[in-house]
Amino acid sequence: MIRLGLVGGGPGSFIGGVHRMAAELDRRMVLVAGAFSGDPERSRRAGETYGIAPDRAYPGVEAMIAAEAQRPDGIEAIAIATPNHLHLQAARAGLEAGLAVISDKPPAATLAETRIIADIVARTGGLYALTFTYTGYPMLREARARIAAGEIGTVRKVIVEYLQGWLANPVEQAGNKQATWRVDPQRSGLGGCITDIGTHAFNLAEFATGLRITSMLGDLGTVVAGRALDDDATILLRFDNAARGHIAVSQIASGERNDLTLRVYGDHGSLSWSHEAADRLRISGSDGVERILWQGSHGLARTTAAATRLPTGHPEGFIEAFSNIYGDFANAMRGPRSDLMQTVDHGIRAMAFVETAVTRNGQGWSPLLPIAPAINENAA
Amino acid sequence: MIRLGLVGGGPGSFIGGVHRMAAELDRRMVLVAGAFSGDPERSRRAGETYGIAPDRAYPGVEAMIAAEAQRPDGIEAIAIATPNHLHLQAARAGLEAGLAVISDKPPAATLAETRIIADIVARTGGLYALTFTYTGYPMLREARARIAAGEIGTVRKVIVEYLQGWLANPVEQAGNKQATWRVDPQRSGLGGCITDIGTHAFNLAEFATGLRITSMLGDLGTVVAGRALDDDATILLRFDNAARGHIAVSQIASGERNDLTLRVYGDHGSLSWSHEAADRLRISGSDGVERILWQGSHGLARTTAAATRLPTGHPEGFIEAFSNIYGDFANAMRGPRSDLMQTVDHGIRAMAFVETAVTRNGQGWSPLLPIAPAINENAA
Amino acid sequence: MIRLGLVGGGPGSFIGGVHRMAAELDRRMVLVAGAFSGDPERSRRAGETYGIAPDRAYPGVEAMIAAEAQRPDGIEAIAIATPNHLHLQAARAGLEAGLAVISDKPPAATLAETRIIADIVARTGGLYALTFTYTGYPMLREARARIAAGEIGTVRKVIVEYLQGWLANPVEQAGNKQATWRVDPQRSGLGGCITDIGTHAFNLAEFATGLRITSMLGDLGTVVAGRALDDDATILLRFDNAARGHIAVSQIASGERNDLTLRVYGDHGSLSWSHEAADRLRISGSDGVERILWQGSHGLARTTAAATRLPTGHPEGFIEAFSNIYGDFANAMRGPRSDLMQTVDHGIRAMAFVETAVTRNGQGWSPLLPIAPAINENAA
Amino acid sequence: MIRLGLVGGGPGSFIGGVHRMAAELDRRMVLVAGAFSGDPERSRRAGETYGIAPDRAYPGVEAMIAAEAQRPDGIEAIAIATPNHLHLQAARAGLEAGLAVISDKPPAATLAETRIIADIVARTGGLYALTFTYTGYPMLREARARIAAGEIGTVRKVIVEYLQGWLANPVEQAGNKQATWRVDPQRSGLGGCITDIGTHAFNLAEFATGLRITSMLGDLGTVVAGRALDDDATILLRFDNAARGHIAVSQIASGERNDLTLRVYGDHGSLSWSHEAADRLRISGSDGVERILWQGSHGLARTTAAATRLPTGHPEGFIEAFSNIYGDFANAMRGPRSDLMQTVDHGIRAMAFVETAVTRNGQGWSPLLPIAPAINENAA
Repeated sequence: MIRLGLVGGGPGSFIGGVHRMAAELDRRMVLVAGAFSGDPERSRRAGETYGIAPDRAYPGVEAMIAAEAQRPDGIEAIAIATPNHLHLQAARAGLEAGLAVISDKPPAATLAETRIIADIVARTGGLYALTFTYTGYPMLREARARIAAGEIGTVRKVIVEYLQGWLANPVEQAGNKQATWRVDPQRSGLGGCITDIGTHAFNLAEFATGLRITSMLGDLGTVVAGRALDDDATILLRFDNAARGHIAVSQIASGERNDLTLRVYGDHGSLSWSHEAADRLRISGSDGVERILWQGSHGLARTTAAATRLPTGHPEGFIEAFSNIYGDFANAMRGPRSDLMQTVDHGIRAMAFVETAVTRNGQGWSPLLPIAPAINENAA
Repeated sequence: MIRLGLVGGGPGSFIGGVHRMAAELDRRMVLVAGAFSGDPERSRRAGETYGIAPDRAYPGVEAMIAAEAQRPDGIEAIAIATPNHLHLQAARAGLEAGLAVISDKPPAATLAETRIIADIVARTGGLYALTFTYTGYPMLREARARIAAGEIGTVRKVIVEYLQGWLANPVEQAGNKQATWRVDPQRSGLGGCITDIGTHAFNLAEFATGLRITSMLGDLGTVVAGRALDDDATILLRFDNAARGHIAVSQIASGERNDLTLRVYGDHGSLSWSHEAADRLRISGSDGVERILWQGSHGLARTTAAATRLPTGHPEGFIEAFSNIYGDFANAMRGPRSDLMQTVDHGIRAMAFVETAVTRNGQGWSPLLPIAPAINENAA
Repeated sequence: MIRLGLVGGGPGSFIGGVHRMAAELDRRMVLVAGAFSGDPERSRRAGETYGIAPDRAYPGVEAMIAAEAQRPDGIEAIAIATPNHLHLQAARAGLEAGLAVISDKPPAATLAETRIIADIVARTGGLYALTFTYTGYPMLREARARIAAGEIGTVRKVIVEYLQGWLANPVEQAGNKQATWRVDPQRSGLGGCITDIGTHAFNLAEFATGLRITSMLGDLGTVVAGRALDDDATILLRFDNAARGHIAVSQIASGERNDLTLRVYGDHGSLSWSHEAADRLRISGSDGVERILWQGSHGLARTTAAATRLPTGHPEGFIEAFSNIYGDFANAMRGPRSDLMQTVDHGIRAMAFVETAVTRNGQGWSPLLPIAPAINENAA
Repeated sequence: MIRLGLVGGGPGSFIGGVHRMAAELDRRMVLVAGAFSGDPERSRRAGETYGIAPDRAYPGVEAMIAAEAQRPDGIEAIAIATPNHLHLQAARAGLEAGLAVISDKPPAATLAETRIIADIVARTGGLYALTFTYTGYPMLREARARIAAGEIGTVRKVIVEYLQGWLANPVEQAGNKQATWRVDPQRSGLGGCITDIGTHAFNLAEFATGLRITSMLGDLGTVVAGRALDDDATILLRFDNAARGHIAVSQIASGERNDLTLRVYGDHGSLSWSHEAADRLRISGSDGVERILWQGSHGLARTTAAATRLPTGHPEGFIEAFSNIYGDFANAMRGPRSDLMQTVDHGIRAMAFVETAVTRNGQGWSPLLPIAPAINENAA
């Protein structure tokens, strides 16, 4: 099993535990060390909750990498689960040390930082993957496969919504740990909601359709008084095949939990998916018949079946989807990379989306900020 | 019973039959005459399908009004169910003759024509109502009542979607009668999809919230080649209390039937409704509990109960909703007007929305075109 | 238009109004008279709410028939909407007078009474139809057509549930008019819940599948203390092709509204329908794909399309389904009878089900009580 | 971490992998050894897929226990995932060796075998738990807690359905490994469907309500020709508080996947849950309002929250539910037992249900076969 070290995931984090469970679920990887917190004692205590030996709970990513390099059973990869502003430092440390890196999205706090990561990836030839969680859901992989196969014809319209309500009130003032760093420009970066969940929506739009968003017009707002970053946004889109679309994201949509939905309309059919019914994919043809495909049933794409552990009707969820991303990462450490794996290139596109949305807010249509150079450099 | 004459609703129309059924369902009104078509023979034959005596099937609205005026049992009201470009003529004829007028939305092909209707209404003091169908759905009336009562707090975000797929292909070229006039600027007016269903979405956003849309940014497109009018649109919104929102309407959303959905987010809860489950209203509180209110159950607003004919669990639909609008119209002919009745003022607002969307398309944010004068004149 | 007289439907009735609306919706029939109550003054006042002239609101069915027979515009048909114990008298009076009769289910309070009606129908050759409402729903007609066409193969299992909660508490003691007669053996007959909604479930099982129930084992219970009749029942079934099944009906299922559901399993697919989503039919094949057919879309059976008034996505409901039954009835008055029309033979089968369930309760499996003679007599 | 050995779970098994993932998900246990198959080579190869060292993949449970006992890091518990007829042998071996035992349901092939296990448990004082999977779903734990707290009043009616379609055709003849042993009396035991999924339904009915089923009337059938065991069953129920109910289970319900549903009706409300929307619990009150509670939201029972890993809206599924059962098991190994843990007593009740259903099939109502002695003995 591949040995993994976790960066972040200290007390109050939920995503740290998700990384651990997802990495280990299929016994491809095992969490053996962590830099859970900058405070040695907090890191050690967090390590205990993960079942990590005290001597492998470090107060920082560099310390972890240095110490682990001395062990015959040292870590081979790191997972980054810190607030955004610490992503670059961790990714750099890992890549420079020759470790494979898997990171929470967004790749970094800004597009500029992300370009730096891309440069390092390109220079070191290291493996760097992003946990755009939704790309791990089997029925979204099925959507991608079916659109690519032409099942709904030419894509003409794409709607992605990601609506949450947990920031509808200023819970950050009450000490909600998840909230405090997300609404803080020092730790979240340029965007708030647009960074936190808008990047998921953007990534999914491109992942599912195989198209690229070329221009956009954003309407970002800060609804809850006193916040410095956006907490609600609607973005109009154009894709490289002239398809139209929009993304609606919000963290002030009271009463919403975490329902990401995708709808793609082609010239002879459409397809929709909802996180609240994640094991289903709905396809509507021009004949007026809706078809619901179920995870685990026959007739799905090979990549869908490969990302499914249980017979149909046995629900898998968020952890399993996350684990599928870890599976692609583990595969890439040992062999060829799946094109389903999200790389720094996808991260750059997502951050270009954020940067365009924030800097051009209220100024009309804009192309995505230029990103080709970094991608070329990376591909070189 | 109030005697009604129908204008339009000739062969191939479905809305003509809806007017007849809706008007008569509660035995408040009865259809006794019609100007179903400009062609006398076609009008007579259409009359047969409605059960109208041959001598009361006229070749035009003026002919109908003139002849009916001579009868002791002549019509007291007209219903307008023609393509948009004929609305003004019919409304004028009815109002000038002192008849009550109930008209399909939009009120006319353009804002300017609508202003003329408003002037005539104001001058004659006549009764003029618009069949914005969705305002007749009991659970949308409930939504309006609950928002007004503060159940979800201050409204901060509104999303209205109205997606259809029936124009995803150029069916107008195959002679689909519903399609041909809707994609024809001569008969539909300035807008296509934005007029046909965008006006419903706009009207519902204001009806349900009690707010007014003050500015907007539209993204109208013509997706199917060869069309002169828009068939897909997304419009960003601001409301007079600073709430944000958007409307998404499409007639090229392959696989969609006729699903109008409303979502309203307040600062302590939200509310949603879908045409595909029209007898339910979903309310989500900050406590994470979703509540589903069912039409016909206890505890609903008086106006909701009054618009319901059957015990809970016995579905009512489109015809019944339409009939509720006729009920308000019939009431207004005999007594005070309900504030649920949609008047020419609402029509002007909807047409200002269309005109702003079309004329300002691609030009950024714009206030709704000035409409206050007409409203004042009308109120005078 | 065919002239109709209503029997029953006095103050507090909801089904009386449904008969009126359903009969008139498609302008095939018109309600012109009624014996709304045995009390002259109450009948007259009820007549007012229906828009019936005072002189045509009679205190009894015989009085109505006698008086109407003297009029050139007298009634041609009667609709029976009384409590069950008055059905026989009304049906007899109508049939003997040569009027067509359409009656609420059950046909009468007992099987014996129903046999008498069958004898009269057979002797007079009159037209007699039963409003088994669910047979009027287009998507249940579609289910019947598809099963008949072999779409799911040989039927092997049938589940019909009809669950209500409105009698979960002794509301009859609080004067609920709908409740008082239903729980009273003098007015409801041998069965309570099994008669009121069990007959719908039984009828639907046979209507949809085209099979006949041959034996059954019932478990009827009286849950609410003080009641004389059953208010909850589960019945195990066998069909004439050896298919298995069960019916579950209840009026004490707290929180349920009126959700009748049908599920039919064949050897290569299944089909399901729910009253709460009445415009959809769900078909699941052996391939794991669920297909949802929508009312009003292409590719449905001719009889389904004929029972649909609106384009797909425009919901029709209970009144429209009821009206489809009236349409079959009106057609049968003027021409050949549709095999979708439910006759006294179907009524006898339903009452044999009730009688078997009640008299054999707790005694194991039983064939349906013998019903062949009456059917033969009727067929003679 | 507690060291676990798996019995069964060889090639073609899916539940073996579920045990591994569930045991390890929360890092309470770790799979270190296995008797995956009776064939040494097959066991070794299966071990590889689990990541088990070749020397710890044994050809039988006794061999495993003996060898592991010699190791300082030997197993502390065994998990049984074989076909039913091998359960007793494995449970006995584990318990006699002083290991904790967690077993797939049913506990054994027959009630008599289960009694033997109970005797051994009683005599050894060992820990023995059953993976009645659904008891691990947080929202079913919530259902249990709310019913216990009186939220729907006195329970009066219970419906549990568990419908599958995967055995609708004789797939066992085509070599489907899951199917072959389940339809074989030598390996499945007395019952087919009633054992495989009927026991889940029975267990859930008692788990959720806190009531005990006292008598029953079963209708078991073998629908697919050539089978020796039942593949479809409906069972009428009475509970110890006189509540009524039924269980419907089938493996020939074409088109169904794995949808277990629970509905419980009390005298002032009801509650329902479906496996296809496992993160929701629906509660309907007498007020006509349906409330949907979501996993992960506020206001749920402490035991529900404790069984939840992610924020609301992040779906957890079958593996996580199974893992919650492992969590209770692990807790019981180190401390007091949760009353949520299903023990051999629950197993005896489930097998009494099977034995009553099969031996009394077609013979009317019967009490559950006497089980008190075994329970007393066990409790002694």
